[in-house]
Amino acid sequence: MKDSYVLPAAADMHVHLRDGDMLKAVVPTIRNGGVDTVYVMPNLVPPVTTVAAALEYKKRLQDVDSSINYLMTLYLHETITPEVVREAKKAGIVGIKSYPAGVTTNSSSGVVSYEPFYPVFEAMQEVGMVLNLHGEVPSDKKDVTILNAESKFLPTLKDLHRRFPKLKIVLEHTTTADAVEAVRSCGETVVATITAHHLSLLVDDWAGNVYCFCKPVAKTPEDRKKLLDALVNSNGKFFLGTDSARVAHDISAKKGKGNAAAGVFTQPFACQYVLNSLEDAIERGDIKDEQVTEELLKGFLSEWGREFYGVEKATKQILVKKGNATIPESIKDAGVEVVPFRKGETTWSVEWQ
Amino acid sequence: MKDSYVLPAAADMHVHLRDGDMLKAVVPTIRNGGVDTVYVMPNLVPPVTTVAAALEYKKRLQDVDSSINYLMTLYLHETITPEVVREAKKAGIVGIKSYPAGVTTNSSSGVVSYEPFYPVFEAMQEVGMVLNLHGEVPSDKKDVTILNAESKFLPTLKDLHRRFPKLKIVLEHTTTADAVEAVRSCGETVVATITAHHLSLLVDDWAGNVYCFCKPVAKTPEDRKKLLDALVNSNGKFFLGTDSARVAHDISAKKGKGNAAAGVFTQPFACQYVLNSLEDAIERGDIKDEQVTEELLKGFLSEWGREFYGVEKATKQILVKKGNATIPESIKDAGVEVVPFRKGETTWSVEWQ
Repeated sequence: MKDSYVLPAAADMHVHLRDGDMLKAVVPTIRNGGVDTVYVMPNLVPPVTTVAAALEYKKRLQDVDSSINYLMTLYLHETITPEVVREAKKAGIVGIKSYPAGVTTNSSSGVVSYEPFYPVFEAMQEVGMVLNLHGEVPSDKKDVTILNAESKFLPTLKDLHRRFPKLKIVLEHTTTADAVEAVRSCGETVVATITAHHLSLLVDDWAGNVYCFCKPVAKTPEDRKKLLDALVNSNGKFFLGTDSARVAHDISAKKGKGNAAAGVFTQPFACQYVLNSLEDAIERGDIKDEQVTEELLKGFLSEWGREFYGVEKATKQILVKKGNATIPESIKDAGVEVVPFRKGETTWSVEWQ
Repeated sequence: MKDSYVLPAAADMHVHLRDGDMLKAVVPTIRNGGVDTVYVMPNLVPPVTTVAAALEYKKRLQDVDSSINYLMTLYLHETITPEVVREAKKAGIVGIKSYPAGVTTNSSSGVVSYEPFYPVFEAMQEVGMVLNLHGEVPSDKKDVTILNAESKFLPTLKDLHRRFPKLKIVLEHTTTADAVEAVRSCGETVVATITAHHLSLLVDDWAGNVYCFCKPVAKTPEDRKKLLDALVNSNGKFFLGTDSARVAHDISAKKGKGNAAAGVFTQPFACQYVLNSLEDAIERGDIKDEQVTEELLKGFLSEWGREFYGVEKATKQILVKKGNATIPESIKDAGVEVVPFRKGETTWSVEWQ
């Protein structure tokens, strides 16, 4: 790897920007991560299930930073019909996100069975909207745990792809070797996003450390190695979606059951963390230095996501420089103190050109 | 199960009683859990590596509650020689605990290789001292994670048993189906302890919840079912060792990296949690109601541990009654607020007869 690169502005194809004060705190951090285009998750409370709600949400985002290109989504829900799909397409909404019920933060309105949505998927396929899948089945505490929840979802991915071969599908935040294989085995309409933190973390890292706890959880060294392999051998099939989530992690004894919300906050250092993870992976021997080319960085961070979503190439550029910045210990605003991923560590700097 | 039982006082064959103010806070809770005999872990800071230190520690424990029978241990360490073993045996010290270096709280002085200790094990076998194994290999973040660390230790267990067939060995806090099988495959000198919390918890429970995070970590439904099977089909091979650890879990943003100490605090409700876990397991169908006999409860909670360690039967009895007590939200003393396992839940009551 070189000590600096000039790259096209990044596209982060999976972000949680929340709403209200939290929105005002998170949106200004997008550019800090080298990102000018984001694919905005719809799991607000209540979820974004109408075209009107998505457009109003987009306006609230633009009011805070109008320089970012917000790609909007709807939350797959019983009120979404083929008519809503066509209306959404006309309004410029790009995709629909499916959360299996109960798997992560704000997923209580999620999907129990996919079959009732086949007419919706048919319409999405017709008009060219993207289906984003949170690829985990809910834990039943009998056979399914957070460790195999993604692997157990993969037959559903393959089945949906078989039924709707032209439907563009993104398997979000893949974490397992199984998932990488499943995505590779599907046709070109199926791709996957990879987060910055899953390129670094293992199960040992989030054990007892809520700042590294997310859903899906980080898994084994073998899984991480396969994610890194998916990145360096992506050919457009795997690209960045940080799944950055700004959540409060104060679980002092007085608060509830001690259950921390799942989420790792990576937005202000989106590109930087990816560069760190690649450096670490080279050092560990998981990937080879020569695999990390400038072309690869451009593709994974910026181009491949835009291509899949049919978004124009970036017009702006960023200059990234190795070891030139420090991640703060915590970030305080909107009344919440958040601990960013890799707090206190040295990282790359991002300068807009 | 019946609504109440009269049982012999329990023996908790794996406890962390700490030292100083923490000792004064924990020791008075032993009796609340229905326990009159405890096997005391030696991982103080610095660890208990001499006979004198163990006897002084015992005195500090007796000063707080002289009604408890404290079975003392040494910490396996390069300063432990066959001479120390013989001296310890004469002084009434019951066993030696081995921590692989770096696997859990206060294990930094632990064992890297077992071979240098073969003369020590030989002496222990001769004089009849018990070897207690923390059965995990250290995570190397390459092949070993906290998920397979116990399974990867089992060849060491079998090898030590093969080399020292008459050495009494306890595999502490077993958590996996593999470990249950390995213990069963060994001769009668090898037994295992099971904690109360591992009879309840799964990986999903400690993900994002530090109050349920311990080492070894709770694993899959299949593993838990096998632990319950080991309990109901124990025949003396598996008995109670709570591994109760009173640790502070305040990991607010200001404190360090967010890494919480491993440990679940179960001491004040030792027997109660086991009874709760058995009720839950019957409800889930993991075990059958008729398997939980009064004989089984007496054996697992009190008799089998004493028999293995050569301790006399309990002379006192406890009356336990179903659904007759509530676990507090938190317990405050010694300047530390601790959240007990299953906080706020209904449990069994324990009355000394």
